[in-house]
Amino acid sequence: MSAFPKLTAEEVAEYIPNGALVACGGFTAAGCPKVIPLALAKRAERLHADGKPFRIKLLTGASTNDAVDGALGRARAIAFRAPYQADRDLRKCINDDDVDYVDDHLSRYARLLRQVFFGDIDVAIIEVSHYTDDGELALTTAVGSAPVFCQSAKHILLEHNAYHERISGFHDLYDVEENSVPVPLRALSDHIGTKTLRVDPKKILGVVETHLPDGIEAFKPCTSVHEAIAGHVVDFLLREIRRGVLSSASLTMELGTGNMTNAVLRHIGACEEMLNFSVHGEVLQDGILELLTQGRIEFAVGSSLTVTDPWLQTIYGRADFYKERLLLRPSEITNHPEVIQRLNLAALNAALEADIFGNVNSTHVAGTSVMNGIGGASDFAHNAALSVFMLPSTAKDGKISSMVPFCSHIDLTDHDVDVIVTEQGLADLRGKSPEQRALCVIENCAHPDYQPLLHAYLQRAKSGHIRHDLTAAFAFYDAYAKTGDMRNARL
Amino acid sequence: MSAFPKLTAEEVAEYIPNGALVACGGFTAAGCPKVIPLALAKRAERLHADGKPFRIKLLTGASTNDAVDGALGRARAIAFRAPYQADRDLRKCINDDDVDYVDDHLSRYARLLRQVFFGDIDVAIIEVSHYTDDGELALTTAVGSAPVFCQSAKHILLEHNAYHERISGFHDLYDVEENSVPVPLRALSDHIGTKTLRVDPKKILGVVETHLPDGIEAFKPCTSVHEAIAGHVVDFLLREIRRGVLSSASLTMELGTGNMTNAVLRHIGACEEMLNFSVHGEVLQDGILELLTQGRIEFAVGSSLTVTDPWLQTIYGRADFYKERLLLRPSEITNHPEVIQRLNLAALNAALEADIFGNVNSTHVAGTSVMNGIGGASDFAHNAALSVFMLPSTAKDGKISSMVPFCSHIDLTDHDVDVIVTEQGLADLRGKSPEQRALCVIENCAHPDYQPLLHAYLQRAKSGHIRHDLTAAFAFYDAYAKTGDMRNARL
Repeated sequence: MSAFPKLTAEEVAEYIPNGALVACGGFTAAGCPKVIPLALAKRAERLHADGKPFRIKLLTGASTNDAVDGALGRARAIAFRAPYQADRDLRKCINDDDVDYVDDHLSRYARLLRQVFFGDIDVAIIEVSHYTDDGELALTTAVGSAPVFCQSAKHILLEHNAYHERISGFHDLYDVEENSVPVPLRALSDHIGTKTLRVDPKKILGVVETHLPDGIEAFKPCTSVHEAIAGHVVDFLLREIRRGVLSSASLTMELGTGNMTNAVLRHIGACEEMLNFSVHGEVLQDGILELLTQGRIEFAVGSSLTVTDPWLQTIYGRADFYKERLLLRPSEITNHPEVIQRLNLAALNAALEADIFGNVNSTHVAGTSVMNGIGGASDFAHNAALSVFMLPSTAKDGKISSMVPFCSHIDLTDHDVDVIVTEQGLADLRGKSPEQRALCVIENCAHPDYQPLLHAYLQRAKSGHIRHDLTAAFAFYDAYAKTGDMRNARL
Repeated sequence: MSAFPKLTAEEVAEYIPNGALVACGGFTAAGCPKVIPLALAKRAERLHADGKPFRIKLLTGASTNDAVDGALGRARAIAFRAPYQADRDLRKCINDDDVDYVDDHLSRYARLLRQVFFGDIDVAIIEVSHYTDDGELALTTAVGSAPVFCQSAKHILLEHNAYHERISGFHDLYDVEENSVPVPLRALSDHIGTKTLRVDPKKILGVVETHLPDGIEAFKPCTSVHEAIAGHVVDFLLREIRRGVLSSASLTMELGTGNMTNAVLRHIGACEEMLNFSVHGEVLQDGILELLTQGRIEFAVGSSLTVTDPWLQTIYGRADFYKERLLLRPSEITNHPEVIQRLNLAALNAALEADIFGNVNSTHVAGTSVMNGIGGASDFAHNAALSVFMLPSTAKDGKISSMVPFCSHIDLTDHDVDVIVTEQGLADLRGKSPEQRALCVIENCAHPDYQPLLHAYLQRAKSGHIRHDLTAAFAFYDAYAKTGDMRNARL
């Protein structure tokens, strides 16, 4: 007989008042609560139908599942949201100015939570695979910010998901509450924390039983553009290994997520000259598990196990094998500048657009509409030994150039961008002056349709350390807004 | 009898061939070589007069003295320069496209040097207060990148400056060659390194004797604008201490340099409610020494002792007193993300302009002309517990607004900027959505002359997570270019 009341999701949803600050555990769809947020969205719809207000302020680990950002977003039940999102419905609410969205480096987020910057967390909803009456919690397929949510929250609601009961032992929970001592991590595989979380049992209001997979969908197949980008990346990594800048014996990589990453993983897997390597990042996806299983990846650390269900079943079926090869850590550790620096890693991330001087936009289309948050892009790019950004050179059938004179939004400055790669080629910007960078990006990364326009921009630009003509800096966007095609820009 | 030949600066200058990659020790004018660069500039002028080419590629610790960037810049003897500069003459060469200038985070610079990214260093010119025949060097008033220069250089030339003979014992030289172990620093005053540098004596080509002060000039008096900014900053720090976000018992601050910093220091010194604090940063200037001497600053760490000569004499006269209270470290350590994170510090830095969404330009006027490099601004802003940027709300008698719709150059993104302060007031941007940030900056920081224009920009801007109208984003610069006054912007 548990010390905590067993409740239904509908009962639990009644505990959460209008205006509450709610934190949902998980990181991506992995480890997210699955039934309470859905019940909360239904409650919001009922209340709204009765003309009553109901909106919460919502904190998450990163992106979520459809039950959290999707259902709550569609129900117009979110007033405020931090720190990362990637949901189509929620994104629309944010860009319609209906949700206040605060996007932040994941490495800084835990600090803001500890400083109580968003106010007291009223309730944390945490998915667990096991729990004890004295407040020992075993998390499921993600860690994210669940530990700091549990520390900071006034109340905790548990979703006890028996589907993930074989996940215990995959976690390594280190607490960085005080930054005054070094994080005692030397090698990726060091166990520095605990396998379970300790919370004050008095905070736990109740438990909802579930038995649900995370429902991670497989990525779409890679396109030839992704394949070309992956090919350039692997050629470059090999060159860096040959000239001793990267160590082939101890190569650690951070890889973003998505099908471009999958293409890179497949190319690396097929390249016999590249020795085994390790992965340290936010999200462990199918492609990583594939290479880990083959022994091509030696060790993998992430904040979530965001894999499709067949892979999850494989892991659970050979738990002892995988426990020796992967660990899940809080995002405060995966994204910690100190840890990233120490691991000397190569960070490979996707971008939306880049400018010819090496600044990168990874979040806002045309400077205004947010696609997602910055997440860990800057944490990794600023602290990695090598920072690579990958993107197709054009979008919308060539009507949009991803290489522009001046990014419409800047998430990563040129100082944090070592290399830009498109399907056209690769620009290594390290040690180059702005003009050298501009020529390198135009000639290696821009689509041929846009090379003359970008050269024309440089020609008309004022001289200076950086060549710009601010009256024409956004001419590409202007042409797109007026004619639907950036190729019509007049320069 | 020394193992190394005693040479004149003129003799030594002959050793350095056209096209050489030369590294000068020091950090600011402190610790810079004083006679060899000057002799090199004269040699360049003679060769140029004879129609012969002579240009070097020059690496420094940060900004330098007039003998380095000034004389070599005026002699058109620099083809390439990294990583930070602040010299009027050199700046002109860079903005005239005559010098390839590569600006980088100081925390990343040592890594690039170790990766031999700029090529092999042909000769490092290092000012020392003492040296031994077996290659033990005592540096003078700065550390900067001298240790990594000496490691990487093929040859070393010493300027033995007896003026600074009492500086020994002030250095703490820790070598971060491998990032695979934690930097063993817990408290600011921990000695983690050695007092002297060990180099291969075979590299030392010779010694030039000098007896010269650093020639640091006092800052100009603060204006009422600086005083007002300092007042807002101190009020804010007190509020943060009272609500427990900053600890008054263990407050550590990074303070930029210049007379705005001096004003802040004076206001802190005069504020009895603020307890003693410590300083960790790049440059220790007069104002810091003043409070250190009074006991208001408990401990100060920097990469240079950039003080006027009377202060230097005071320090040398009471060396034992000051050795217990200050240390000079390599900039790789002062600017190390790991160290900055661990110290939990409040970083206060100057900026050139900020946009209403919280992005900061600290280097390029109107997006093109470089004033200086980014230096450690991003190292500190990204990793500090609190990141504050200070700037006057206008320039050129009000004809330029420092608060603009879209920065003409972005060095620090909104994620790295917690607080913006002008003489008008202070905007705390933490936890705010882009629209909330914009209103907060306009109402608290913008000059009243520009508030209606900035509101008008927001009104005409497209809705979205960030409100922008890219056709008008640079209207302020356009108005200034056409009419000499940003107040004429049409929005």
